[in-house]
Amino acid sequence: MIRIGIDANGGDLGVEATVPGAMKAVSLFKDIEIVLFGDESKIKPLLTNPERIKVVHTDVTMDMGEKDPISAVRHKKDSSLCMAMYAAKNKEVDAVVTSGPTQCVVMAAHLIIRRLKQMERVALCPILPNLDGNPRLMLDVGANVELRPEHLGQFAIFASVAAKEVLGVKEPTVGLLNIGSEPGKGRLVDKETYYYLQDLKTIKFIGNVEPDQVVNCPSTIVVTEGYGGNICMKAIEGTAKNMAKMLKQEIKASLGGKIGYLFMKKNLKRFAKRMDSKEVGGAMIFGIGTPVVKAHGNSDGYAFCSAIKQVRTMVQSDLIRKVTEALPLEGKANE
Amino acid sequence: MIRIGIDANGGDLGVEATVPGAMKAVSLFKDIEIVLFGDESKIKPLLTNPERIKVVHTDVTMDMGEKDPISAVRHKKDSSLCMAMYAAKNKEVDAVVTSGPTQCVVMAAHLIIRRLKQMERVALCPILPNLDGNPRLMLDVGANVELRPEHLGQFAIFASVAAKEVLGVKEPTVGLLNIGSEPGKGRLVDKETYYYLQDLKTIKFIGNVEPDQVVNCPSTIVVTEGYGGNICMKAIEGTAKNMAKMLKQEIKASLGGKIGYLFMKKNLKRFAKRMDSKEVGGAMIFGIGTPVVKAHGNSDGYAFCSAIKQVRTMVQSDLIRKVTEALPLEGKANE
Repeated sequence: MIRIGIDANGGDLGVEATVPGAMKAVSLFKDIEIVLFGDESKIKPLLTNPERIKVVHTDVTMDMGEKDPISAVRHKKDSSLCMAMYAAKNKEVDAVVTSGPTQCVVMAAHLIIRRLKQMERVALCPILPNLDGNPRLMLDVGANVELRPEHLGQFAIFASVAAKEVLGVKEPTVGLLNIGSEPGKGRLVDKETYYYLQDLKTIKFIGNVEPDQVVNCPSTIVVTEGYGGNICMKAIEGTAKNMAKMLKQEIKASLGGKIGYLFMKKNLKRFAKRMDSKEVGGAMIFGIGTPVVKAHGNSDGYAFCSAIKQVRTMVQSDLIRKVTEALPLEGKANE
Repeated sequence: MIRIGIDANGGDLGVEATVPGAMKAVSLFKDIEIVLFGDESKIKPLLTNPERIKVVHTDVTMDMGEKDPISAVRHKKDSSLCMAMYAAKNKEVDAVVTSGPTQCVVMAAHLIIRRLKQMERVALCPILPNLDGNPRLMLDVGANVELRPEHLGQFAIFASVAAKEVLGVKEPTVGLLNIGSEPGKGRLVDKETYYYLQDLKTIKFIGNVEPDQVVNCPSTIVVTEGYGGNICMKAIEGTAKNMAKMLKQEIKASLGGKIGYLFMKKNLKRFAKRMDSKEVGGAMIFGIGTPVVKAHGNSDGYAFCSAIKQVRTMVQSDLIRKVTEALPLEGKANE
């Protein structure tokens, strides 16, 4: 049995999304057991099936607008988020899923579960939609603001194993997010990282990837420090969301548009689905000793169930052990 | 008469785009005179109307894939790009339009026309499409990789004047591109810049703008150093382009989609137009003594004409003089 800890109070919708998501997941996957950390009085009425579900009560929630993640993780040990993380630390669960506030999730994973010895930094790694229908990994997108080339090397190794195990890509390739295609482009750290990754024998490095290529990406994995990665990911999300709005506005603007919509309703829905983060899964927290998936804050039950499925694959494939074997000892990635 | 110098050999299409664009512009605007720097033998057959058009011959072109912009600007003084810039330096033209390679354009503007005394850096400032239909300015998107808060202050002042004069915005507001909405977010330089801009009395600063807001932007202007700005702009461009491709794929995938398309053809064209850089104009080079517009490399005649229109507005409104008055002396923006 794979035991999955759920931060049931977390996210914009709280138990309204996490509990239906968990219900759906236990019915789909007979090899999982779920522990819901959250408000029992609110969870109980939503439990359609008590099979392989345990509830651990707490009515404390990590606020979605939390401004001071370190202090919050230190002082709200009885929050549903932290309780799920402590259960992972104590090996009571094999994985954690949460749609809580991103920086608190990263901090809680870091401070409670702790980093793997060979990883000097923790990274946030979302799965990005891609034009060819095959998702891509990008990391780090916001757990760090400044990183050194060796950190990006560790991320590249970690993500290469994850791409194999979680996305099922046979020979994952790695690109470096940069503002130009040639080796000498970007800031000093980008230039140094380029040569560092080029020398790394355990990954397949293909060179720089420009931000306009990310949605139609030549590599399986895009590595970047958290600042550029966060900018890139949010710009993609914002553009996709606002273009969908513009398209709706234009379609509604005339009768022809409305009639046309009736004919291509299914086509437009498939289009919307292709860019929807709910479809591709949550962001993985890489660098700690337990699989953790951070689902989107506004996840509904469907999206939350996808995140549970994703973390189940991470446990099933024994990702952490395989990554530990692939990483050089004590973070000396290039020696 | 407004005298506009054109790098006629530049861009992916060269004279095939620049000359028709210039022809269109002189017929639309009776107050402009154009000097085409480029290959006379290729230009002549395309001149449909010799009125207010002068040709200065050179068959040297700045290569679109030029890897070493500084050396290229130094050694290719007889390229159409550099000749247009020298004409601006010598006051033979009032403005320059080019669709040549971005870094060469920035370098040529910098090294040939020279910076304004009060601007310590040159910035590349594109006009970005926006959900509300009113374009926005973002700078710097790639002329610099590292900047200090006072440089971003100078950019904010420059762009505030430009937003008034070129976009016609009465009270332009300024936001800082950042990975979080609160003042303490981002790297050290982002935090410092936040407080620097807040103290700047000559602009209206509204705080941080996150990358997912840029296409539906709360401020008229978004300031950022060139690395983050370049990432953000390219991610927006790439997403828009690839989403349009996905939409086409989905529409073509079924008969219903194809029939629907016939009904909403106009709506979809308006949608495509809203995200098209050809519609919103080129990127302005800010910080030098002459208005320069860098049109998209793949500009056709229509897009190139829009860029000429844009540079005409910059000259007409006496932008450089107004900016010089608004900027504090010798780059001491906050004293």
